[in-house]
Amino acid sequence: MKAEQIIFAARPKGLPDSKTFKTVTVDLPELQQGEVLIKPVYYSVDPYMRGRMNDTKSYIPPFEVGQPIESGGVAAVAESMDSNFQPGDLVMLTSSRPLLPWATASIYNATHLKKIDNSVPPSYYLGILGMPGLTAYFGLLDIGKPKAGETLVISGAAGAVGIVVGQIGKIHGCRVVGIAGGTEKVKLLTDVFNFDAAIDYKGNQDMKSSVAAACPNGVDIYFDNVGGEISDGVMANMNTFGRIPLCGQIALYNSTEVPVGPRVQPIMITRSLLMQGFTIGNYASRFGEGFKALVEWVKQGKLKYTETTMEGFDKLPEAFLALFAGKNQGKLIVKV
Amino acid sequence: MKAEQIIFAARPKGLPDSKTFKTVTVDLPELQQGEVLIKPVYYSVDPYMRGRMNDTKSYIPPFEVGQPIESGGVAAVAESMDSNFQPGDLVMLTSSRPLLPWATASIYNATHLKKIDNSVPPSYYLGILGMPGLTAYFGLLDIGKPKAGETLVISGAAGAVGIVVGQIGKIHGCRVVGIAGGTEKVKLLTDVFNFDAAIDYKGNQDMKSSVAAACPNGVDIYFDNVGGEISDGVMANMNTFGRIPLCGQIALYNSTEVPVGPRVQPIMITRSLLMQGFTIGNYASRFGEGFKALVEWVKQGKLKYTETTMEGFDKLPEAFLALFAGKNQGKLIVKV
Repeated sequence: MKAEQIIFAARPKGLPDSKTFKTVTVDLPELQQGEVLIKPVYYSVDPYMRGRMNDTKSYIPPFEVGQPIESGGVAAVAESMDSNFQPGDLVMLTSSRPLLPWATASIYNATHLKKIDNSVPPSYYLGILGMPGLTAYFGLLDIGKPKAGETLVISGAAGAVGIVVGQIGKIHGCRVVGIAGGTEKVKLLTDVFNFDAAIDYKGNQDMKSSVAAACPNGVDIYFDNVGGEISDGVMANMNTFGRIPLCGQIALYNSTEVPVGPRVQPIMITRSLLMQGFTIGNYASRFGEGFKALVEWVKQGKLKYTETTMEGFDKLPEAFLALFAGKNQGKLIVKV
Repeated sequence: MKAEQIIFAARPKGLPDSKTFKTVTVDLPELQQGEVLIKPVYYSVDPYMRGRMNDTKSYIPPFEVGQPIESGGVAAVAESMDSNFQPGDLVMLTSSRPLLPWATASIYNATHLKKIDNSVPPSYYLGILGMPGLTAYFGLLDIGKPKAGETLVISGAAGAVGIVVGQIGKIHGCRVVGIAGGTEKVKLLTDVFNFDAAIDYKGNQDMKSSVAAACPNGVDIYFDNVGGEISDGVMANMNTFGRIPLCGQIALYNSTEVPVGPRVQPIMITRSLLMQGFTIGNYASRFGEGFKALVEWVKQGKLKYTETTMEGFDKLPEAFLALFAGKNQGKLIVKV
């Protein structure tokens, strides 16, 4: 049996493009006893994947040139030589990093697969109940430590993580202010997700003043997904004893030189600020706790969710690139 | 009775100079019942005072132009109209910020004074048992959280705070590496204060490699008194889950423009780093705990101490400026 794979063709400098990816056709071997053939149903594409395209040591190894790209995914069983799995079962990979190769079909030993619960839409396992939801949960609660009445500012607020952070902030009684690009996203935040205010960074020449206007009592927590000049504007408005969970720096990921900006240390001293970088793997031992809370809030209607869906296996590279153009609202999902 | 005062004459731009200070003569009123006339014995001069020369909101109000400069000090009672104080008693001011005006004599209500214990040299109350010692204690233990076997790097290591941080690090079983300016200071750190290694930043073109060489297992804790390019070199060597207590940024205090440098957020995410600014006032409710531990270690010989003394009331401005030229070893004290 043949399968198409999208492989990592060359390490990009700056923004990835069509030369970064290449589609190849491979022959799959015969299915053996205990093995399962799966076909992808949904893929997640995420900003952190840009980091894996560089050949640098990080918390997750770089992509290997010539090997398939991999990302979060939900698959369906197509053929099974294991009694625990039947054709049509929805599955994910079991691992602390359950990443599915970009391939129209692949073979796994059944021990590496787990069935998922059908009671919520399967794509939720890639978003609000998956890595983005858990990232929001632990970053905000463990580092941000929100208290009722405090002001929480979120950059990349209309992204997969940001919309969950804002809603958990509201659950904890915070005034929540989101920063996003474009009037449509800003409207989404205040009208659909009940943010108290939202700031459009596009064409904004003075983020510092915009944040000050939206946060009359200053900023107690800054959940940062973006970095760069947006963060410079927020930092100037931090209150004493403020907390800054660092989740992502999408504004900097495609930099070809070391990004330079105002040094943060002086204001961090005078205002006694805490800044902490994290990756979701740090909290692997507590995923159960986070998943339980997120499911509960979804069922109670306290957590709403949105995703942007693109269709077609061959759209995967385009979907990934769309992240850096800020084209998504909420989680960006590719339906195969 | 007349007294000389050194007043704050003008806000400096960049490095303070002789125009920043002015000596004036004032008449003191008659001593009233319940009042005490004190004359300074020792003054402390400290880098944080540069911040008070700017007219910006901070954790401690700016100096007022036309008013005496103030800094940490120990004074002796010259005349007393209160039965609790006798001429010759050594005193400090009682407050969470016991700062003595730069004046050859001043009058206080007795309720604002406290006698100090004569069993240690009085200047110790300005150094190892005073704000610098407490700053080292809380910054390292509360934010740095040292564990045996970890590597601790300290910038400004030969300063009043740095030498205490290093020794507390050794008490907790860390490998301790100091960064200081000049061969004499570097030798002091390794030979007198038992640091495991020391790096001379003067003329050093590649701090990143120097830190890597001195820290074969990477850096777990970076206690930062200095900032700027020295910190850039240390940051590149931080281990995953490293902690960075931000105590001072003396390299930046005289900047006339916003200091710019490589953004720290990307490496803070990929390595899950924590950076926290603090000022000693945050720990006011726990000063007793810190003081007790420091006294105990001094008595046990586990904490050694050094100070640089300049003599003469009129040397105060010069002593303050010497801080920024890095002329001091350990605490810089002016003996009146």
